[in-house]
Amino acid sequence: MSIDFDVTSGQTEWRHAVGHGPDGVLRQFRTGPYSFETGGYLPEIVIGYETWGELNRDGSNAVLLEHALTGDTHVARGDSDTPGWWDGFVGPGKTIDTDRFFVVAPNILGGCYGTTGPSTPDQAGRPLGSRFPFTTIRDGVRVEARLADALGIRRWHTVIGGSMGGARALEWAAEFPDRVGNCVVIAACAESTAEQIAFAQIQTQSIRLDPQFRGGDYYGATGPDGTPAPGPVEGLGIARRLAHITYRSEPEMDLRFGRQAQHAEDPFGSAGYDRGRYQVESYLDHQASKLVGRFDANSYIVLTEALMSHDVGRGRGGAQAALSRLSGVRFFVAAVDSDRLYWPEQSERLARLLPSTPPVHYITSPIGHDGFLTDIEQLDGALRAEIFT
Amino acid sequence: MSIDFDVTSGQTEWRHAVGHGPDGVLRQFRTGPYSFETGGYLPEIVIGYETWGELNRDGSNAVLLEHALTGDTHVARGDSDTPGWWDGFVGPGKTIDTDRFFVVAPNILGGCYGTTGPSTPDQAGRPLGSRFPFTTIRDGVRVEARLADALGIRRWHTVIGGSMGGARALEWAAEFPDRVGNCVVIAACAESTAEQIAFAQIQTQSIRLDPQFRGGDYYGATGPDGTPAPGPVEGLGIARRLAHITYRSEPEMDLRFGRQAQHAEDPFGSAGYDRGRYQVESYLDHQASKLVGRFDANSYIVLTEALMSHDVGRGRGGAQAALSRLSGVRFFVAAVDSDRLYWPEQSERLARLLPSTPPVHYITSPIGHDGFLTDIEQLDGALRAEIFT
Repeated sequence: MSIDFDVTSGQTEWRHAVGHGPDGVLRQFRTGPYSFETGGYLPEIVIGYETWGELNRDGSNAVLLEHALTGDTHVARGDSDTPGWWDGFVGPGKTIDTDRFFVVAPNILGGCYGTTGPSTPDQAGRPLGSRFPFTTIRDGVRVEARLADALGIRRWHTVIGGSMGGARALEWAAEFPDRVGNCVVIAACAESTAEQIAFAQIQTQSIRLDPQFRGGDYYGATGPDGTPAPGPVEGLGIARRLAHITYRSEPEMDLRFGRQAQHAEDPFGSAGYDRGRYQVESYLDHQASKLVGRFDANSYIVLTEALMSHDVGRGRGGAQAALSRLSGVRFFVAAVDSDRLYWPEQSERLARLLPSTPPVHYITSPIGHDGFLTDIEQLDGALRAEIFT
Repeated sequence: MSIDFDVTSGQTEWRHAVGHGPDGVLRQFRTGPYSFETGGYLPEIVIGYETWGELNRDGSNAVLLEHALTGDTHVARGDSDTPGWWDGFVGPGKTIDTDRFFVVAPNILGGCYGTTGPSTPDQAGRPLGSRFPFTTIRDGVRVEARLADALGIRRWHTVIGGSMGGARALEWAAEFPDRVGNCVVIAACAESTAEQIAFAQIQTQSIRLDPQFRGGDYYGATGPDGTPAPGPVEGLGIARRLAHITYRSEPEMDLRFGRQAQHAEDPFGSAGYDRGRYQVESYLDHQASKLVGRFDANSYIVLTEALMSHDVGRGRGGAQAALSRLSGVRFFVAAVDSDRLYWPEQSERLARLLPSTPPVHYITSPIGHDGFLTDIEQLDGALRAEIFT
């Protein structure tokens, strides 16, 4: 049986058998060398992942849960001390009932939550940085299949994800149709659209414009005085601000903030460049600050470009042909009614292209795309009736 | 009578009497010192402007045409060799008939098309740069009133504008209600919203992040080898890309570009950071390139922050109170049905707050906000019937 290694310490040691361990605690699995879809190569890919529950004897109760762009493996609290980002959805007795299902949440290839990414050191100890290969969602799925092999999961009961996680779930079905029983695609689409690409371009450019980016090799950099340089936190912050606007809705922002000034600050109070802020600016500053404290800028670029590359029809004769072959997978498609990044029409189109032309289930929320995180419970009834029966 | 000066040459000379001259040719008018709304001061403000047609004896046929954020004074070709940006709308026999009306188009305060802005030199010849005061749309209107005085226009027949030009027109009515006969506000709103402020913040931050910005004092800067530095063109380009997305619509971008690669480029073809582009990226690159070749980055910041400051109700007891006092002005409100920067609902709200509660006229276009430029002719019938009778 395959084992996982403590890659971060550089030592090879037994920790847990791959499929057994405490719930909601990060483990890592060494998958071996990997040749990327567009030509890159790395001698070793490690996948960070967490699990909840127990795999049953015939391996039929495994659920693969795919996180979104800046998400991580910590979906639910489990045995850890830290809340998960979908605690209301995954756990004992929840929609994805970890008393019944064995849930696996891998960090995406190129990420910074345990899986090999640009911040991972090479064998000489130097972070890969700009040398990290161009990565597609298909690459991510292929290395996750190695994890599935190691876990003894030939076929997932369900693969599920929202946003970029939905794209990952869909790519799983297209790449390994005989290994996916149910595929739940929430607030995602068959292929990234021109507008999603456009918003993404701006975000990657903002990071690259930051003088601290240093062409992607900013790890360990120091300033003129020898102190550690901050990295491209300003550029990453701008990227996050823009992304966050697309994750929410205009009415929500107007209702929450309007034109209010931030506390004692005065957006009109000063001549020149050091004016005070509006509340909505302070809010976006806060969103930016939170992200840059927890996310690597190179991973943000790699994953954003992976999402730009998302196209279930690439190399498969187009989306329609690719999806028409998936009659062996049961699909569940859902959208947020106010989503303006992954418009409901895009979920409707995906559903129309599927052999079963399933109905699109709707999360009703005024806040936009992020409704897939905040209001996922609205899908509880439909998911229990159709998928997690 | 006041005169205008050739400010760009630094010499004082008679050129044209203020109100007379060839149509569609830039002139400049020196307005004297000005104290800005939030406390700044400049010893001299010059307004660049163009005119078309002739002012009649009683001064009753004057139309003030206000351009948008990156617009300029060259609305119509006139006697020049260069097409104007609203040639189909302004000219002999057009909706704004220059055989009947005297049209004046001033460059906004803080701009870079003839009016004093950050790129204007001080008396020592050094561009104002970071010393340019914080500017509001109200400031712009107040200095334009001095131009109106000099032109002998006590009351405009009509003040008209779209987008930021619409905000300028509305502010004219609110600041000088007895000097505005008709006020035409197209694709604009009573006060900038949280979301408009949010998009604007990202744009100004992108410019400031550019290492070539140098705190706003990049004019005349040189690189390490002594050659002229490019200025913050990368940051300004990112700002323009984002703005441009908000000016258009998702369906338009999807229809025009989809996921197509740009010519021989391959968005998947290379590992690392030098991949090829999607068509939509090339399109945005082109939009960015066009703007940075014609617009000053500091002006972009100053005007963007002026637009953030737009609030017809500021210091007037709120929008409702401010607008309720404008019963002496005849309003014409129009919106683009697919606009997602100045949503139709915001035009509807503006109309509801006006004493006459006028109907909102619609430009029907799939492309979004820019419909106010590309499809303005759709308002021809209504404007001839109600305003330019």
